[in-house]
Amino acid sequence: MRIITDYLWFNTKKRQEFVRITDDGAIVKKSGVKEGMALVSAMHITAGVYVNDWEDGLIQDFQVWLERLAPAGRDYRHHQTGEDNADAHLKRTIMGHQVILPITGGKLDLGPWEQVFYAEFDGQRKKRVIVKVMGE
Amino acid sequence: MRIITDYLWFNTKKRQEFVRITDDGAIVKKSGVKEGMALVSAMHITAGVYVNDWEDGLIQDFQVWLERLAPAGRDYRHHQTGEDNADAHLKRTIMGHQVILPITGGKLDLGPWEQVFYAEFDGQRKKRVIVKVMGE
Amino acid sequence: MRIITDYLWFNTKKRQEFVRITDDGAIVKKSGVKEGMALVSAMHITAGVYVNDWEDGLIQDFQVWLERLAPAGRDYRHHQTGEDNADAHLKRTIMGHQVILPITGGKLDLGPWEQVFYAEFDGQRKKRVIVKVMGE
Repeated sequence: MRIITDYLWFNTKKRQEFVRITDDGAIVKKSGVKEGMALVSAMHITAGVYVNDWEDGLIQDFQVWLERLAPAGRDYRHHQTGEDNADAHLKRTIMGHQVILPITGGKLDLGPWEQVFYAEFDGQRKKRVIVKVMGE
Repeated sequence: MRIITDYLWFNTKKRQEFVRITDDGAIVKKSGVKEGMALVSAMHITAGVYVNDWEDGLIQDFQVWLERLAPAGRDYRHHQTGEDNADAHLKRTIMGHQVILPITGGKLDLGPWEQVFYAEFDGQRKKRVIVKVMGE
Repeated sequence: MRIITDYLWFNTKKRQEFVRITDDGAIVKKSGVKEGMALVSAMHITAGVYVNDWEDGLIQDFQVWLERLAPAGRDYRHHQTGEDNADAHLKRTIMGHQVILPITGGKLDLGPWEQVFYAEFDGQRKKRVIVKVMGE
């Protein structure tokens, strides 16, 4: 069995920013894994990783929607610690913080519209995502 | 290590429909895997896969609830592309689009009430779910 | 390949309670797995498993927020079966019911603030979480 680990670094210009990372599937080729799975998981608790459409309008819809479900600037208890990002913890929970991508025939086995995104909700600083490929 | 891949096809009669797919655990038997995991993941971005109760009332509760959290028919930006299914992208995000099922002793190792569902939010056309079993 | 399975039991005093379970990563050491993944998955459908911050204020924020998104005590159809816990099924869906933890160098490869929690939404009785470690 082959197990390969890599880390992706992000430092977004905006506090909230969604970044398409599907191209980093390059790690699959490098790993030599033909059949298996790749875990892609945010290592920070105010960011998510999700699979959905690469369409700017929809990305804005997601952001408007998350603001409605988990608004910033409220009187969260977490803010009594000096933090101001409780909404980021909630938003990343809705989006999910990790995905497993199947690998078949040496490639990511994704549907026609599946794209992997890093969803940053408290950026403007260095943060990591782990990619772990397991298979044969 | 054994790695077996299968695809489940769906073409629901209604636009929104939840289909129980636990019985497709038959793939586990066929695979011969005794210990491992099965990834079950929607390959389309307007459908989900989730684990919950097989009870019609609760399934209706889920659907009413999702309509409240992510209503159809709103003025989503995604619709400027000609699409009308932005709500389906949001709903599937809440439900999740993939699950990992543990396999122990050659069987899905699920709790007494755990059932796996395919959640279609923009159906009436052919769509796929990948099942990938890894183990020994 | 090594595959080790363990079960964690919970019997919370309160109906709703979040329990940090990261320390149970002891199973990783015991398993002898140096590189791989650990699945941690709730086996009951009114409980979740999630990764987020170990900060009491934020935990309260999560609970207040979930009550707003999926309130208890409503006239859910599921309750026509005699149950009164439909909200617990919805809440656990938002939080997620399983996580995959990467293992690198014989340890859980988590970010600085990542903590694993068991989220009970209908407790005061015995419930299980499966932990399955796969790797080498």
